[in-house]
Amino acid sequence: MKREEVFNFSAGPSVLPTEVLEKAASELVNYNGSGLSVMEMSHRSREFQDIFDSTKAKLKKALSVPDTHEILFLQGGASLQFSMVPLNLSAEGDAGDYAVTGNFAKIAEKEAEKYCRVNIAASTEPTLFDRIPAQEELRLSPDARYFYYCANNTIFGTAWNYVPETGDVPLVCDMSSEILSRPVDVSRYGLIFAGAQKNMAPAGLTVVIIDKALAGHERPITPLMLSYQRMIDKDSMYNTPPCYNIYLLGLVLDWLETRGGVAGMEKIKRERAKRLYDYLAESRIFRPCARSGSRSDMNVTFRTGDKDLDAEFVKFSQEHGLRNLKGHRVAGGMRASLYNAMPMEGVEKLLEVMKEFEVEHHV
Amino acid sequence: MKREEVFNFSAGPSVLPTEVLEKAASELVNYNGSGLSVMEMSHRSREFQDIFDSTKAKLKKALSVPDTHEILFLQGGASLQFSMVPLNLSAEGDAGDYAVTGNFAKIAEKEAEKYCRVNIAASTEPTLFDRIPAQEELRLSPDARYFYYCANNTIFGTAWNYVPETGDVPLVCDMSSEILSRPVDVSRYGLIFAGAQKNMAPAGLTVVIIDKALAGHERPITPLMLSYQRMIDKDSMYNTPPCYNIYLLGLVLDWLETRGGVAGMEKIKRERAKRLYDYLAESRIFRPCARSGSRSDMNVTFRTGDKDLDAEFVKFSQEHGLRNLKGHRVAGGMRASLYNAMPMEGVEKLLEVMKEFEVEHHV
Repeated sequence: MKREEVFNFSAGPSVLPTEVLEKAASELVNYNGSGLSVMEMSHRSREFQDIFDSTKAKLKKALSVPDTHEILFLQGGASLQFSMVPLNLSAEGDAGDYAVTGNFAKIAEKEAEKYCRVNIAASTEPTLFDRIPAQEELRLSPDARYFYYCANNTIFGTAWNYVPETGDVPLVCDMSSEILSRPVDVSRYGLIFAGAQKNMAPAGLTVVIIDKALAGHERPITPLMLSYQRMIDKDSMYNTPPCYNIYLLGLVLDWLETRGGVAGMEKIKRERAKRLYDYLAESRIFRPCARSGSRSDMNVTFRTGDKDLDAEFVKFSQEHGLRNLKGHRVAGGMRASLYNAMPMEGVEKLLEVMKEFEVEHHV
Repeated sequence: MKREEVFNFSAGPSVLPTEVLEKAASELVNYNGSGLSVMEMSHRSREFQDIFDSTKAKLKKALSVPDTHEILFLQGGASLQFSMVPLNLSAEGDAGDYAVTGNFAKIAEKEAEKYCRVNIAASTEPTLFDRIPAQEELRLSPDARYFYYCANNTIFGTAWNYVPETGDVPLVCDMSSEILSRPVDVSRYGLIFAGAQKNMAPAGLTVVIIDKALAGHERPITPLMLSYQRMIDKDSMYNTPPCYNIYLLGLVLDWLETRGGVAGMEKIKRERAKRLYDYLAESRIFRPCARSGSRSDMNVTFRTGDKDLDAEFVKFSQEHGLRNLKGHRVAGGMRASLYNAMPMEGVEKLLEVMKEFEVEHHV
C-alpha cells in the first residue's frame, strides 16, 4: 500500500511525520556530506556531538526547560524509570506517593515497593481505571520524597487535566504518551520522563528532565547506568547513547517548530480529539470508555459493548487502511492514538469509517 | 564528501555495510508495501513480530546458538550488563572471578564489587593492558558463580586467542567488539553479551545470549528491566524493544550470510589485520601497542612513540579521508578498528597513507 492510503493509530511505536522520515531516508547513507551515516558516527565525534547538542537545545526550547533542570537521553524505556525513580530519589525506609491510574502507573508502584514505603495516594483501579482522581481525593503523605503519577494513561485513554498540588513534595511524572503535545511548566516538576516512541522518535530512547537538585542521592546498590547524577555528569554519554534515535528526535523537533511548537500541537490535538469525542457522544453503537473530564486527547478509547462487534469493527477498519485500532488486551474495545504526527485527515477517515460501520450495524 | 572517499575506522559506533544502509534508506518511509516505516510499527504487530523473529532466527543460525541458550535483544549497552551479570548470576556473598584486561573489564569488575565478592583472576593493568593473561596465570576461585572476561579489548587492541578453561564455572563474556567476526562455540558460555554498535547494528541494542539454566535467580533488589528471566519469559518484549535497531541487525545478518557468515568474516578479518600488523612489524616510525600473541584483529593499536607525531599523523590521515584513527584518550596513539564492514580497500588506503607519512617523517 502507499503511505498515503494508510493511517496508523498505533499506541506506540507510532506514526512519525512523513517529512521527517523522508528527510532521514535522504541522508541515511551520507549525512550532510560527511561521507558517513549518522548510525556510523562515533558518539565522541564532533559531527555527532553537534547533532546531540542541537537536539538537546531544541528540546530545551520546545518545552522551555529551565536551567535548574537537565535533559537526559537514556535507554531502557519508561519501565526502567520505574526503578530509577525510587533508587535515586528515595533512601531505604523513605516514603513515595503513587497515584495509580492505569497499567503503567501500577507497574511503577509495584516496582517502587521493592525499594521504599509506598503510599497509594489514589487508585482508580476499582472502576477499571476509567477516570483520574480529583485533587481532593489525593491522600498525600507529609514525608513523601516524591509524588508519582502518569499524565496520560495510554491503555485506558485517560489524562490528568490538572497538575497535582503537592506542596513541597516534588512531582515525578511519566509523560510518555503526551510529551510535546502541549506546553508544560517544567519548573513545577522534580522529574519528567518519557519513552520516545509516541511523540518523539523511534523506540529505544528515553527522555528524562530532572531538577538537578534531586540528583546525586542514589543508593549504593544502584546499577551504574541507573544513576541520574552519573548521566548528568557525563551529559548522557557515560556510554554510547542511542545516537540515531537522538538524531531523529532532532528532526521531529524541527518539524514541530514549523507547526507552532507545543502550543501548535496542543491546538491541533484538541481539535482532533474533539471531532472524535463529539461523534462518540452521538453515536448509536460506539461509546467512549473513559469518563467525561478524564478523557485523553492522545488516546481515545471506545467500544460497542459487544466484543464480537468490536472485533468486526477492527477488521472493517483495517480493510479501509486504518491500522492498529484494536484496544490494548487488558482494556479491550478500540483505541485511536492521535499523536502529534497524526494528520487531521486520519481522524476524518476514521470518522467516515465509523459512520459507515454504524449505518451497516445499527439495529 | 562522497561515501566512497571516506574510510571510517571508528571503534564504535562504526562502519556499517553500504548495501545495508542503502536497503534501509530505500524502505525507511514505506516498509515492504505496508504503508508504514519500521520505526512506526507497533512492537505487538504481526509485521514487526516477523522482523523480530526472523532477525533472531538469523542470529541463532549465524552463531549456531544451541537450544539451551536464549537470545535477548535488550537496551542499555554493555555497561548495563556489568550490573545485570552479578545481580542475576550471584547471590549476596557469592564470589565472581574477573579477568581485568582493559578499561571495560575493569569497570565491570568495579561494578560487581557492589554486589558480590570479586576475585581478580588476572589483571594486566600493571603493563597498561598490553596483553592477555595465559591460562596458567588465571587464579580461579573454586566457588565462583562465574568467570568474567572481555574477549576483545577495544581500547588497547588486545584479544583473547583462547577460551579460558574454568571447569564447571560458567563463562561470562563481553564480546561487544568481536561478535560475529568469527565462529564461537556458544555452548561453552554461560552468557555472552555485546553492544550492537560495532559489528551488528546502530547503537541502542544490546544482544545477550544466555544459558537458560542460569536465569531465574536474580536478587530481590534487581530492577524489573534487569532480570534475564523476565526478558526470556517475554521474548525481550516486556516493554518496547529498540525495534529499528533489531530490524537493522536483520539486514546486517543478511549481508553477513552472503559473505560466508562468521567463517567468512573470520577469514577476511585475519587478512585485514595481517596486512596491517605485517607493515607495523617493518615500519620505521610506527609500532604496535599490544604484545605479540595478544593482538586484536578488530582493533589494531599503534603509535610512533611521540605524541606530537601521533597527532600529526591523525591529522594527515583525516586529510586523506581516513576517519577516527585517533586512539582512545586513556591509551593514546592510534587505533584502526577493522570491523566486519571495513572493506579491504580501507586497509589498503590506510597502509598507503601510513607509508606516505613514514617517507615524509622518517629521520
